[in-house]
Amino acid sequence: MHDTTSHNLLALYTQIATLKLLPRTGWLQRGVHNAESVAEHTFGVATLALLIGDTLDGLDRGKLLTIAMLHDLAEALLSDLPASEMLAQLPNRAEYLALWDEYARGCSREARLVKGIDRIEMLSQALAYERAGSRALGEFWEDIADGWGDEFPILGQLAAQLLTQREELRGAS
Amino acid sequence: MHDTTSHNLLALYTQIATLKLLPRTGWLQRGVHNAESVAEHTFGVATLALLIGDTLDGLDRGKLLTIAMLHDLAEALLSDLPASEMLAQLPNRAEYLALWDEYARGCSREARLVKGIDRIEMLSQALAYERAGSRALGEFWEDIADGWGDEFPILGQLAAQLLTQREELRGAS
Amino acid sequence: MHDTTSHNLLALYTQIATLKLLPRTGWLQRGVHNAESVAEHTFGVATLALLIGDTLDGLDRGKLLTIAMLHDLAEALLSDLPASEMLAQLPNRAEYLALWDEYARGCSREARLVKGIDRIEMLSQALAYERAGSRALGEFWEDIADGWGDEFPILGQLAAQLLTQREELRGAS
Amino acid sequence: MHDTTSHNLLALYTQIATLKLLPRTGWLQRGVHNAESVAEHTFGVATLALLIGDTLDGLDRGKLLTIAMLHDLAEALLSDLPASEMLAQLPNRAEYLALWDEYARGCSREARLVKGIDRIEMLSQALAYERAGSRALGEFWEDIADGWGDEFPILGQLAAQLLTQREELRGAS
Amino acid sequence: MHDTTSHNLLALYTQIATLKLLPRTGWLQRGVHNAESVAEHTFGVATLALLIGDTLDGLDRGKLLTIAMLHDLAEALLSDLPASEMLAQLPNRAEYLALWDEYARGCSREARLVKGIDRIEMLSQALAYERAGSRALGEFWEDIADGWGDEFPILGQLAAQLLTQREELRGAS
Amino acid sequence: MHDTTSHNLLALYTQIATLKLLPRTGWLQRGVHNAESVAEHTFGVATLALLIGDTLDGLDRGKLLTIAMLHDLAEALLSDLPASEMLAQLPNRAEYLALWDEYARGCSREARLVKGIDRIEMLSQALAYERAGSRALGEFWEDIADGWGDEFPILGQLAAQLLTQREELRGAS
Repeated sequence: MHDTTSHNLLALYTQIATLKLLPRTGWLQRGVHNAESVAEHTFGVATLALLIGDTLDGLDRGKLLTIAMLHDLAEALLSDLPASEMLAQLPNRAEYLALWDEYARGCSREARLVKGIDRIEMLSQALAYERAGSRALGEFWEDIADGWGDEFPILGQLAAQLLTQREELRGAS
Repeated sequence: MHDTTSHNLLALYTQIATLKLLPRTGWLQRGVHNAESVAEHTFGVATLALLIGDTLDGLDRGKLLTIAMLHDLAEALLSDLPASEMLAQLPNRAEYLALWDEYARGCSREARLVKGIDRIEMLSQALAYERAGSRALGEFWEDIADGWGDEFPILGQLAAQLLTQREELRGAS
Repeated sequence: MHDTTSHNLLALYTQIATLKLLPRTGWLQRGVHNAESVAEHTFGVATLALLIGDTLDGLDRGKLLTIAMLHDLAEALLSDLPASEMLAQLPNRAEYLALWDEYARGCSREARLVKGIDRIEMLSQALAYERAGSRALGEFWEDIADGWGDEFPILGQLAAQLLTQREELRGAS
Repeated sequence: MHDTTSHNLLALYTQIATLKLLPRTGWLQRGVHNAESVAEHTFGVATLALLIGDTLDGLDRGKLLTIAMLHDLAEALLSDLPASEMLAQLPNRAEYLALWDEYARGCSREARLVKGIDRIEMLSQALAYERAGSRALGEFWEDIADGWGDEFPILGQLAAQLLTQREELRGAS
Repeated sequence: MHDTTSHNLLALYTQIATLKLLPRTGWLQRGVHNAESVAEHTFGVATLALLIGDTLDGLDRGKLLTIAMLHDLAEALLSDLPASEMLAQLPNRAEYLALWDEYARGCSREARLVKGIDRIEMLSQALAYERAGSRALGEFWEDIADGWGDEFPILGQLAAQLLTQREELRGAS
Repeated sequence: MHDTTSHNLLALYTQIATLKLLPRTGWLQRGVHNAESVAEHTFGVATLALLIGDTLDGLDRGKLLTIAMLHDLAEALLSDLPASEMLAQLPNRAEYLALWDEYARGCSREARLVKGIDRIEMLSQALAYERAGSRALGEFWEDIADGWGDEFPILGQLAAQLLTQREELRGAS
């Protein structure tokens, strides 16, 4: 006989796993073929959250990685009625909703760091697509110097390095 | 001027991000076209680690998610000289090596849970490929009842449910 | 020197042409890899509109094909500010908006026929994916007998034939 | 009981729908991966026929769109015996054959416009592939100024704008 | 300064290498996504020619493998004017033409063996696509027992085994 | 009843045919999407071996093509226990092992020629990916002038021509 919790959890994960097939449409709209999946972007954000978070003091790593894993799921799960119902039965449902709200409002250090990393990951992927040939991603680099704030200087440094690598790429080709 | 830490970190992440393009070759060898990437599998394992871990008591969530994110990176990073050197300069290098060792030897609850989830995620993906048409994945289901142990009953429950869903799929087609 | 009309028209078409890259996400969410693009679906609807329309009396072919070509563009163009502005400068803008409204409200024979064909094309594609292996599209066939109305009997006949072919496929495999 | 017309029509459409999977081989031979399908090209031609046709006077829109939809089907259908037989049973068979002939010989304004648009669409796609990285499509632009005639000045204007955008792309990269 | 022979040879190979991108359209027309390339089919035929040829007596291995490598190139090269000219400058041009003729007319043991292997390879690939899910390839198996002749009994044996494996697959699913 | 030889041969070929799906991971790690399969690379090497070998005197064509076909199979077959057992039952097993050894040690003219061609084919593919847009393959061209030896001057000539074509590509873009 099957346990309700595990049954519900599997149904929810089956829904989440379709993010492996869903491309990030922003890339497609800019002519990138074979764009990364939403799952691959989340992988990137969570990996960077781990690596960057570990260079900083005073962060809750469990919370940081949870926000990183959840940050793109909200849209997929909350807007879908069956998924929303499955989510409602999870023991940690209230915490997840609180973390989504925290991320959307940027009201914790972990939330703000993930938000910055989300942007860094996108720039890193844009550079990868430019290395693969794309010449249609200039708009991503236009305001790269702005909006990093003072809270996490490493984000601004990473953005500056990505920009430098992009300049080298353009000079070399 | 660029900071050494962020420079090193970006070089390491650029290496890790190629896992978005690397397919899990086990699927290809069984005739699955467009197999998931290593990054997508890791996304699945980390998501399940979060959802399953939150139904259990006494686990360190930060440690659990870190092992989930790292578990497939060891092979990619340690066997590659430049990546290995970049890794060596990370502040948390010693912890990461310890966690890989912990995972390989299964000597913590978190490590053992991720190991079981790694197998559940693979079964879930095998079922998804069977739903998409594959008839070449029978071997994955042969010993599904074995090896789940008594430590995490939810893993055996999830495996049983996956098997039930597979039987339903075979009955329906 | 460039003409404003042709400049505007090219900008609009460049936007529309990204539909060649955008997959129909409904298929992806049901586990279909390499799902058709939105452009391919529109091609199918317009082709069927031509072939089916020519078996019926009293339809305006130009209007029918225009609705078929436009029916999926509304969402892509009206929700996007630059595209919306380009659209606003087309000489036939008012007619296009009227046709979208006509389609949405189903208040002409041509609009209602395209709406039915949109569903037939989706069923035809679902059957094609089932021939290619998918076992996850059962829900598409559940209510296939309903909703065809009396206005265009050929639509119900096509649906019945698709269902018959599907039964044959299931019997044969 | 099934109607012969709808049965024949569905068989024909099933054949036509394989154009969603058939790539335009000219792109593949020039090293473009993931080339557009024949169906996507036809979508582009029909969309441009609608938009461009509506800026011109004295065209029959129904005829124009029909030629646009049919122009690439002739080769696929007439050279294939079963498809040819299915086509032979369509009520509008004679008109379709006449339109193909009209297109091949360019003996109507609508036919000549679609022929020009077919070339514009190909240039637009070539530019899109160049934006995505291709450096092997130079031959498409060599004789771009020639052959547009005086009948539809907008075609020459569109070609000139595509060339300008291409020069900007080459200057920027 | 460059040697004419090597220059000509490289131009010819660049043309041949586009066969890595050209799909075998027969599969696409039967709804197979991601069909194998012409190059992959040739790889299969040449591999089988080596393995099967080595179980038989009295064959010229060099000639056998040459026919296997060349058998699908004739259409690609002879119908294309620049490629045809490049081919004309190869020192072994006369032999290649003779081997194509030999293959087309089946007038040597090696030619007839490659012709049979070409069919075995296609059946093997059809079975692989059926393992991956396709239910649209039944026609390939209809006349499988016929046409193998007495010259190479191993071909009939391989066909019989492929049919047996197919029956097992259909029984298991 | 089935013959053991053909049964064994088919099992071995089924294993080899998965090389149609396995990408050359070196390209993926450098950001190339849709990288060629191992089978496609082998097709290229064997085709070049035929064309180049035929411009040289004193080579055994059958041996040359056999080494070309086998050179990438060793790793796939010898490291896999079932494949290794199937290989062990082939009548020509001893010869194949000897040719792999010959290739690895470069102790025949044919082996050394295939080794050089393996590198030429990779450069030719790198250039094709650069034509398709990649800007991440510079490392392949760094030591292109070295290591060609005096035995086969045509290899150095081909490398020089590839380099010239690459310089032209960079100048033109």
